[in-house]
Amino acid sequence: MRIRFPYRGFIFDLDGTVYLGEQLLPGAKAAVGALRAEGRRLTFLSNKPIQSRADYAAKLTRLGIPTAVDEVINSSYVLARYLAREAAGAACYVIGEPPLVAELRAAGLRPVDGPAVDYVVVAFDRTFTYRKLDTALQAVRRHGARLIGTNPDRTCPVEDGEIPDAAGMIAAVEAVTGQRVDPIVGKPSPITLAVALERLGLPEGECAMVGDRLETDIAMGKAAGLATVLVLTGITRPGDAAIAQWRPDHIIESLEDLLEP
Amino acid sequence: MRIRFPYRGFIFDLDGTVYLGEQLLPGAKAAVGALRAEGRRLTFLSNKPIQSRADYAAKLTRLGIPTAVDEVINSSYVLARYLAREAAGAACYVIGEPPLVAELRAAGLRPVDGPAVDYVVVAFDRTFTYRKLDTALQAVRRHGARLIGTNPDRTCPVEDGEIPDAAGMIAAVEAVTGQRVDPIVGKPSPITLAVALERLGLPEGECAMVGDRLETDIAMGKAAGLATVLVLTGITRPGDAAIAQWRPDHIIESLEDLLEP
Repeated sequence: MRIRFPYRGFIFDLDGTVYLGEQLLPGAKAAVGALRAEGRRLTFLSNKPIQSRADYAAKLTRLGIPTAVDEVINSSYVLARYLAREAAGAACYVIGEPPLVAELRAAGLRPVDGPAVDYVVVAFDRTFTYRKLDTALQAVRRHGARLIGTNPDRTCPVEDGEIPDAAGMIAAVEAVTGQRVDPIVGKPSPITLAVALERLGLPEGECAMVGDRLETDIAMGKAAGLATVLVLTGITRPGDAAIAQWRPDHIIESLEDLLEP
Repeated sequence: MRIRFPYRGFIFDLDGTVYLGEQLLPGAKAAVGALRAEGRRLTFLSNKPIQSRADYAAKLTRLGIPTAVDEVINSSYVLARYLAREAAGAACYVIGEPPLVAELRAAGLRPVDGPAVDYVVVAFDRTFTYRKLDTALQAVRRHGARLIGTNPDRTCPVEDGEIPDAAGMIAAVEAVTGQRVDPIVGKPSPITLAVALERLGLPEGECAMVGDRLETDIAMGKAAGLATVLVLTGITRPGDAAIAQWRPDHIIESLEDLLEP
């Protein structure tokens, strides 16, 4: 089976695009296999900072899509790279989970458990508490810390609904500090897209962004001049009024439609 | 010593106006004593929902201003009264501390530890966690719960600085649910002022609002036609540019200036 689109590189969102929970979505395995067989380049891109890239690679492999760690990009990885370039070795306080802390350490940054820091990193954190919010406030007030975030998502889809995502932590920190969390490096930020394009080694015009969310996946791709492919296996329903607003280049039912019929 | 203002009723903010931490501010005891000796009416009004009205009365009494429980109004009390009128006996999930839960129970409401509720009450909560944020989200998504808040304060002054106040919890809940927390009953809401005026038994035009915060104490008083007295013992510094914007009727150095010289 052959791919019916001409793009040399493909950036795939994960949740709602390639899989949902522990199930591959229709066509995911066949489409990725065909892309690889044809020598196209691809990378997987998630906004979720609560697993490591190795976790994602292992999950994809387990579900039937053999994947190397460096084929996966997530917002923790992008943030750690970005911060290491902006402020090598900086002390940071992390509102986030252990995989994010590990990415920061791997990038030479210094996560510490207190307010005496240069940066407060704000992420999706299922262990968020008032104490963490207070530490962020003291870091800003007493130490002039800057605020940087992983991803702007309001909620994260789970098998029986949705749970609070990083937008909750970001809003709380912004409200009490009076400072913006900026940048937020994840989709739709061009910071994330630049990492994906660098990984593909291709210019924007030869790549497609494939995802289920209009305001992140499609918005980011369009803003940078990539082809955009909206897949209807996730959050966006067929006939959603917002589709006309964002105007993806292609709309497909599932990744099966990447293949020639 | 006599009071130099003509108003029959006085509403006093507490933190930064009557006391700071465990210290009465200058003139507080003498001014309250003179008001009582002259038969003026007064009430104490705090936005803080983390102590009970009995706690405040006990604190004032301990510091030298004998105070009965029903002379104190705080945002927990106002919220419980408001909700009991709007939705008597309603089940509610509380992001808040035990004194707020106790006020809700006393007003006949039913605080429960789960998302199957009519209302989510959002307050200053030093025990705030991700689990509470998730429960609020599920209450809204699954049960159509409405959101109501105690107070809009960003931070709460403490002896060595400030700590996050209810604005942090409110912003987090609004960000993940996509719904507004409305009403927020505490200052500067007219909901709080109505309770204070009812307690004084006087019309707006015969009362003064005395406080240290322009955007809550003074804003609320002016909006309702009370005389406003800004006292410079708290958050507002002399010469603060915002004073000209809010235009309190009187500006005093401390509560000593309520007395004739």
